[in-house]
Amino acid sequence: MNIGRRQFNCTLFLTVGAVSLRSLYRPPQLRVNGPRIIDHLNALAEFGKNPQGGVSRVAYSEADRQGRKYVLGLMHTAKLEASIDAAGNIIGRRAGTANLAPLLMGSHIDSVPEGGNYDGVVGSLSAIEVAETLAENHVTTRHPLEVVIFQNEEGGLIGSRAIDGELTEKELELVSRSGKTIREGIRFIGGDPTKLVSVRRKRGEIAAYLELHIEQGGILEAEKIDIGVVEGIVGINWWDVTIEGFANHAGTTPMNKRQDALLAAAKFIEAVNRIVTSIPGRQVGTVGRIQTLPGAPNVIPGKVVLSLELRDLDAAKIQMLFERIYAEAQQIATSSKTKFDFKEINVNIPAPTDARVRESIFESAKELSLSTKLMPSGAGHDAQDMARLAPVGMIFVPSVGGISHSPREFSRPTDISNGANVLLHTLLKLDGQKSPLAADGAVQK
Amino acid sequence: MNIGRRQFNCTLFLTVGAVSLRSLYRPPQLRVNGPRIIDHLNALAEFGKNPQGGVSRVAYSEADRQGRKYVLGLMHTAKLEASIDAAGNIIGRRAGTANLAPLLMGSHIDSVPEGGNYDGVVGSLSAIEVAETLAENHVTTRHPLEVVIFQNEEGGLIGSRAIDGELTEKELELVSRSGKTIREGIRFIGGDPTKLVSVRRKRGEIAAYLELHIEQGGILEAEKIDIGVVEGIVGINWWDVTIEGFANHAGTTPMNKRQDALLAAAKFIEAVNRIVTSIPGRQVGTVGRIQTLPGAPNVIPGKVVLSLELRDLDAAKIQMLFERIYAEAQQIATSSKTKFDFKEINVNIPAPTDARVRESIFESAKELSLSTKLMPSGAGHDAQDMARLAPVGMIFVPSVGGISHSPREFSRPTDISNGANVLLHTLLKLDGQKSPLAADGAVQK
Repeated sequence: MNIGRRQFNCTLFLTVGAVSLRSLYRPPQLRVNGPRIIDHLNALAEFGKNPQGGVSRVAYSEADRQGRKYVLGLMHTAKLEASIDAAGNIIGRRAGTANLAPLLMGSHIDSVPEGGNYDGVVGSLSAIEVAETLAENHVTTRHPLEVVIFQNEEGGLIGSRAIDGELTEKELELVSRSGKTIREGIRFIGGDPTKLVSVRRKRGEIAAYLELHIEQGGILEAEKIDIGVVEGIVGINWWDVTIEGFANHAGTTPMNKRQDALLAAAKFIEAVNRIVTSIPGRQVGTVGRIQTLPGAPNVIPGKVVLSLELRDLDAAKIQMLFERIYAEAQQIATSSKTKFDFKEINVNIPAPTDARVRESIFESAKELSLSTKLMPSGAGHDAQDMARLAPVGMIFVPSVGGISHSPREFSRPTDISNGANVLLHTLLKLDGQKSPLAADGAVQK
Repeated sequence: MNIGRRQFNCTLFLTVGAVSLRSLYRPPQLRVNGPRIIDHLNALAEFGKNPQGGVSRVAYSEADRQGRKYVLGLMHTAKLEASIDAAGNIIGRRAGTANLAPLLMGSHIDSVPEGGNYDGVVGSLSAIEVAETLAENHVTTRHPLEVVIFQNEEGGLIGSRAIDGELTEKELELVSRSGKTIREGIRFIGGDPTKLVSVRRKRGEIAAYLELHIEQGGILEAEKIDIGVVEGIVGINWWDVTIEGFANHAGTTPMNKRQDALLAAAKFIEAVNRIVTSIPGRQVGTVGRIQTLPGAPNVIPGKVVLSLELRDLDAAKIQMLFERIYAEAQQIATSSKTKFDFKEINVNIPAPTDARVRESIFESAKELSLSTKLMPSGAGHDAQDMARLAPVGMIFVPSVGGISHSPREFSRPTDISNGANVLLHTLLKLDGQKSPLAADGAVQK
């Protein structure tokens, strides 16, 4: 099938601000090669493969480097002009017909330790597949295209934060899960940490960014929905909470004379759960890490350090929940004769997606006869950094059992293929819109 | 002051079984040299001294070896015939006038890491002081005396368990806090692990065992009582509890879809506290150690391992509390979609002290115008192993603030001196009792 570019120049008449859209666009015929995505996915799964059937392909490991080499090969086959930027991101370029800012698609291929074969990989390989489909069908877009494989997403969105200028010199010294510092890691994968300034982009320099990703939750599968249209990426606030009691002998200290930091922590963990679930909404609150000192069976815990993480699309709701949790912690402190101290470790502000991009995703899915649901992304993604520079959209496909960051992570081939087709047609819709997207950085929801 | 032995031959008329005691004993004049104990205590505190003012003199460390050498010197000065047995215990002997089983006094001088200067040390140095006082005053007892400094009390009552025959070959391979195996440690301090059988004693071979110790709790100080008369050493049951949930992404897993092992653990910890404090008594229950897997702020905990420790003088009460805790754990498991598994790690059965020995302690304290309180020992002591072989008694002196296993551990010189005097006179009372103690192993409460 040879389909010329013009056929895909969609005819959206758009009134910026009022977001009134009128589509005269005919149902699309172009399709990605779904089985090819799965072949590539299985081949990539060999790099860092572990006995549990998943991968340990942490950024800057040898498995990561080998996986990246494989992806570079795929880009060449897809007729993308591939290179590694100074931050170590892999970028595959395809020229457009007009002098416009590029449209970006991408994701990541690094994994958590003992991770799965889908997180990041589905979006990365589907973006390459979209480019290959366009090449095979001799479709040339107006905007130049860039497929971006961001480096070290799992270790703190390092590659995308280099592009939006947030990555600091100090962070380069942090030791990553590979054992290398981030600076060493960037060199290891072919970047040049002394030239990070060269990868920064300004607002308006990117027309739009699209990312296909597995949901990593169980909602789409449970509700039998094909495509999640991401409303925004939740804000994530992380505190370390230190509870000071008094360590003493577990045999000689009567129950009513104790200042047991772990008992106070237990009441706190229960309170976090109760407060977070006390109001309607999709907010989540998690205590995922706890350390007790001295940590012996025969010593009353004198000190506990635990993590508190709250996520929601609405930063004000996070703040409200935190205030209620903080107030209850003070009550627990008083009744247990302990002291609570909260230290803010990290704040990711919520990143809404672009209303017009969302609309294009909805329309593409509809034309492909796929069901959709508007939903937040509870996980962080490179898209949240791109949202600081450009309109972004995210497409979710179902995760079986909602399992992620695990060798048991799985998305069905049909769902992946559906997601890649939505990615393809959303890209073409955005490319065809008469008002070039984000030419002046003003095209926002 | 030169006081002959006869003067201290107390005249207790004793009916075994009915425990009817009638004392015609005159108030004792003999006193230990309290300041000398404190001098020795301060000198011993130099070995393993740490910046916090306490000691790290873990068994088999160089500090332990140096401290033991110092104690051997004190024994020589106190006219004790000192030697190291095959298990590494230091034994200082003093002959008696009759062909009777020996009376033993002792404790330990090893410490926990970052420990204090009083736990074990007070009893060890006071026992030597009692011997020195007898020597200075030319008092000879009927029974031979032995001052025993048990090795590695803090690492599992190793020295006393060698004497009662409980120490296994397998245990010798365990690595102690010094980094050495117990076998290597025994050699390091001058013992011979191939000849442990030589140190075993049979029931009846020891007339009685007395141990002075700091309380390690805050009851005596709070109630302004001079001497604690130990009713028994509590039983200690320790389980490791494993809670299996399901690890999942903290951002993408809705609150109502979680199987959070740490939330279940929090409810369990609260339940342990509630159940243990729901009935009258001095029982204690502690969760001192907790480990969460995978243990990341952004992952819902899939697995928790925690310790549960219950202590009481009554083994049946421990069992009853455990059954209630176990039942509540099953309820928590059901409501949180987790699974609880209990693994029994260690059981120390309660060790009651001997009624007649207790009576001698009460009488000695009364004659010294010291106030007393019958109380359990919530901590384990070498006396619990000696209780399997002989009638035992324990004398407690106040711990300021109830603090122990800490550089802040402190007992006042006056209290230590009082305790040593009670030890001296209890020993003399036991020595003078007309029915030789435990000659046939039948003299029990």
